[in-house]
Amino acid sequence: MTTPTTPLRVTVWGENRHEQVEQHVAERYPTGMHGAIAEGIGENLPDAKITVATMDMPEHGLTEEALEQTDVLTWWGHAAHAEVSDEVVERVHRHVLAGMGLIVLHSGHWSKIFTKLMGTTCTLRWRSEHDQELVWTVNPQHPITRGVPNPIVIPEQEMYGEYFDVPTPDELIFISGFTGGEVFRSGMTYRRGFGKVFFFSPGDQDFPVYHHRDVRRVIANGVEWARPERERETPTLLRYETGQYFQGADYEGALER
Amino acid sequence: MTTPTTPLRVTVWGENRHEQVEQHVAERYPTGMHGAIAEGIGENLPDAKITVATMDMPEHGLTEEALEQTDVLTWWGHAAHAEVSDEVVERVHRHVLAGMGLIVLHSGHWSKIFTKLMGTTCTLRWRSEHDQELVWTVNPQHPITRGVPNPIVIPEQEMYGEYFDVPTPDELIFISGFTGGEVFRSGMTYRRGFGKVFFFSPGDQDFPVYHHRDVRRVIANGVEWARPERERETPTLLRYETGQYFQGADYEGALER
Amino acid sequence: MTTPTTPLRVTVWGENRHEQVEQHVAERYPTGMHGAIAEGIGENLPDAKITVATMDMPEHGLTEEALEQTDVLTWWGHAAHAEVSDEVVERVHRHVLAGMGLIVLHSGHWSKIFTKLMGTTCTLRWRSEHDQELVWTVNPQHPITRGVPNPIVIPEQEMYGEYFDVPTPDELIFISGFTGGEVFRSGMTYRRGFGKVFFFSPGDQDFPVYHHRDVRRVIANGVEWARPERERETPTLLRYETGQYFQGADYEGALER
Amino acid sequence: MTTPTTPLRVTVWGENRHEQVEQHVAERYPTGMHGAIAEGIGENLPDAKITVATMDMPEHGLTEEALEQTDVLTWWGHAAHAEVSDEVVERVHRHVLAGMGLIVLHSGHWSKIFTKLMGTTCTLRWRSEHDQELVWTVNPQHPITRGVPNPIVIPEQEMYGEYFDVPTPDELIFISGFTGGEVFRSGMTYRRGFGKVFFFSPGDQDFPVYHHRDVRRVIANGVEWARPERERETPTLLRYETGQYFQGADYEGALER
Repeated sequence: MTTPTTPLRVTVWGENRHEQVEQHVAERYPTGMHGAIAEGIGENLPDAKITVATMDMPEHGLTEEALEQTDVLTWWGHAAHAEVSDEVVERVHRHVLAGMGLIVLHSGHWSKIFTKLMGTTCTLRWRSEHDQELVWTVNPQHPITRGVPNPIVIPEQEMYGEYFDVPTPDELIFISGFTGGEVFRSGMTYRRGFGKVFFFSPGDQDFPVYHHRDVRRVIANGVEWARPERERETPTLLRYETGQYFQGADYEGALER
Repeated sequence: MTTPTTPLRVTVWGENRHEQVEQHVAERYPTGMHGAIAEGIGENLPDAKITVATMDMPEHGLTEEALEQTDVLTWWGHAAHAEVSDEVVERVHRHVLAGMGLIVLHSGHWSKIFTKLMGTTCTLRWRSEHDQELVWTVNPQHPITRGVPNPIVIPEQEMYGEYFDVPTPDELIFISGFTGGEVFRSGMTYRRGFGKVFFFSPGDQDFPVYHHRDVRRVIANGVEWARPERERETPTLLRYETGQYFQGADYEGALER
Repeated sequence: MTTPTTPLRVTVWGENRHEQVEQHVAERYPTGMHGAIAEGIGENLPDAKITVATMDMPEHGLTEEALEQTDVLTWWGHAAHAEVSDEVVERVHRHVLAGMGLIVLHSGHWSKIFTKLMGTTCTLRWRSEHDQELVWTVNPQHPITRGVPNPIVIPEQEMYGEYFDVPTPDELIFISGFTGGEVFRSGMTYRRGFGKVFFFSPGDQDFPVYHHRDVRRVIANGVEWARPERERETPTLLRYETGQYFQGADYEGALER
Repeated sequence: MTTPTTPLRVTVWGENRHEQVEQHVAERYPTGMHGAIAEGIGENLPDAKITVATMDMPEHGLTEEALEQTDVLTWWGHAAHAEVSDEVVERVHRHVLAGMGLIVLHSGHWSKIFTKLMGTTCTLRWRSEHDQELVWTVNPQHPITRGVPNPIVIPEQEMYGEYFDVPTPDELIFISGFTGGEVFRSGMTYRRGFGKVFFFSPGDQDFPVYHHRDVRRVIANGVEWARPERERETPTLLRYETGQYFQGADYEGALER
């Protein structure tokens, strides 16, 4: 009864640059990294309606209409963060605050949209040297951990390590350990406005991580978790008379901002 | 031994507009609202070195040099948020992430610097109708609550109510209740980068709240709590070789951001 | 696909003493307070299988078998907390840590099971004088807030106020304001072991709060949220050899505890 | 001015059994593990008044008088958790809730006092095989991290790994990584009642960890952080009339608990 009856609408956004420039990436991900991500979501959420959008589409494929039709957006970018249009970033930000879910993957930690939502530098330590990554569950009651082993074993991965300059998460779900001894808060949730954000760090252009069964399951779990609870609506500043709880007046202070 | 031996350097920033335009505000706060805030900090922290800066000073009084000499900055603005220069906001933001403490007061909830640090709209419900505000302590072990009664009774105040669109705080310290039945998370801390942020909502141009003894004490407690723990330094993204933990290399990925 | 297909099994536990001793309570709640609570859950979760258990049943109706067949337990007690058997409390505690959901209602704040899970006194301030209670949502993205207005208006209620001596919640969902100016963290979640706990304070023997449509909806939302994610299993202390991640050995240290 | 002027009174509690039974422990810690812990605190907090108490003293050295004279208690136990008297545990618990600070070290994770304060099993995975432990700071603004490198390098240590069955901490400060790939939340704070609790996992009878300079500094930082903010006082349940905020009546409900 309380389960939503409409299909979940997911937009998988991919930068799609490494795939064009580096042959080994194109071979590892023949349909693009976004293609592998979309495939993994579809395997786990067969009823979801999944759309792919990439950097080189008009408005990066993230028009107002596209976002209105998106319940949850996944974001992978790396080499071209700086090329993402500020206008599109503002638009995505507005939709997240109004309720759209957002899944930020791996190097998306340094994207404009993630740093804008976090308010911090989102920097970290890194090394791409075939470390093994073990992804340990520290919040086993969380729906995002459904159906995955503890730990998830990723044979080869880029190392991401602390200090990761992000706000304290609402929920810390996974911590990764790497061969070199580094640790990383690799799965974290944040509430921003009326939207839910899940950051999940496994995934890289140089390793076949988005073909990993457990990584795919976590991403799909995150998508399902981030689904909005209510109609899209932007938080507003309103005046309420004494005794008036449900209808504020549309006056926003001495000066318009 | 572990107590810092240098005086705490505080900069009190005031918008200083209501005081110019509205006579009742000028009478309530003869040295400006910033004057009353600075006085309250000085009463409680007599060894602190306190400087005042206002909107109409060059660069709003917040030059690079001024911020380098500031351990903790307090911020009160309201009518002229939009006039604060984006360049100064970027500068303050950089200093907070590098370790400078920040105390955001009352209508500062909608300032550019606070919304940039939070990543959300920071909107709320409000009414200025002489509500009584009771400020209840919900974290009695926190140093910010030292020496104040529970509740703090403010006879007349502007109402600020939920939903307050901010991220989940690191620490919820005070919750206010108003005559009209509204509630508000009125004292909250956030860690951002290497800096500490304290938001405290009591305080308004239309009521003598910054002359209130307990409000003054809380602000001073917050200033003391927000003092940096270490030398100012911006979090960075660096590569670390295997086995190398303390000196990363200054290479920041495939493309500069 | 990821939605559980088996019916949700709920046990509603009621102390059932006020109903026997005070006629006005018996009239307000003709099927007992537990009856009203069970009815409210059934209205909102028609597929759930709901069982009622009360203090005067053998083992308070909470045998090992009964708990094994319970996904989520709701708890209302007040006058007879001290009469609840320590053995039953240990049993419920073990089941919560192993994954059973627990909803603690109103005066259950001072029950043996809640104080044992919290580790604190769980004391508060109170007054039963017909205060109006407004229940404000501060976490609008949370599934427990689905379908209820902000605020929920409860015309008459017992006042519960801060300081409420409980640990910082994992999620603060509701804050209540009362006519007298008091505030209370009235909806909070806690993860304990593999189980989820939701405390919700509205509800009293002296007022018809469990007939309130929105209160019923919140309780049902809480039940649905607290549903276990995995098979019941108690966290254990185990030794793992180097390189062995999935099967620990059954040796628990120098001395058995 | 706001710095307390009285000396900080610390009681270092040690089980003192391994030192009696195992020669290599006695050689590693000639004054006992408690002796090394006390020495490390004294080095870093020379003005503190430090007392040692051990299991075999009457009432374990933790009489009512001793606890009244203690601002912060540190706890190390392992082999004989079961021998600690329940009466003493109740007494320590009461003092923590009333404001006494508590530092729980290493195998103290499974002590009666820690599990009572947490409400969970406090179990974990472990292995004592000379793993290197790297202790990474994830909360660099916290006073407990003052003066220690990131990471702290401990050449040989027992491995403690996730899932560590404790409540979500108020503050996660350190995460450790081990040679075997395991990770552990090794520094965490909890507020319980009016007291502050810090759990710090490095430290073992089989390795000279309490002679490690950085480990000593962290423990001393923790002691300083956990110092009470106010007079010792137990949270209570009291009735407050309407408009009465500061003096509740000593009536505790329909039935005494």
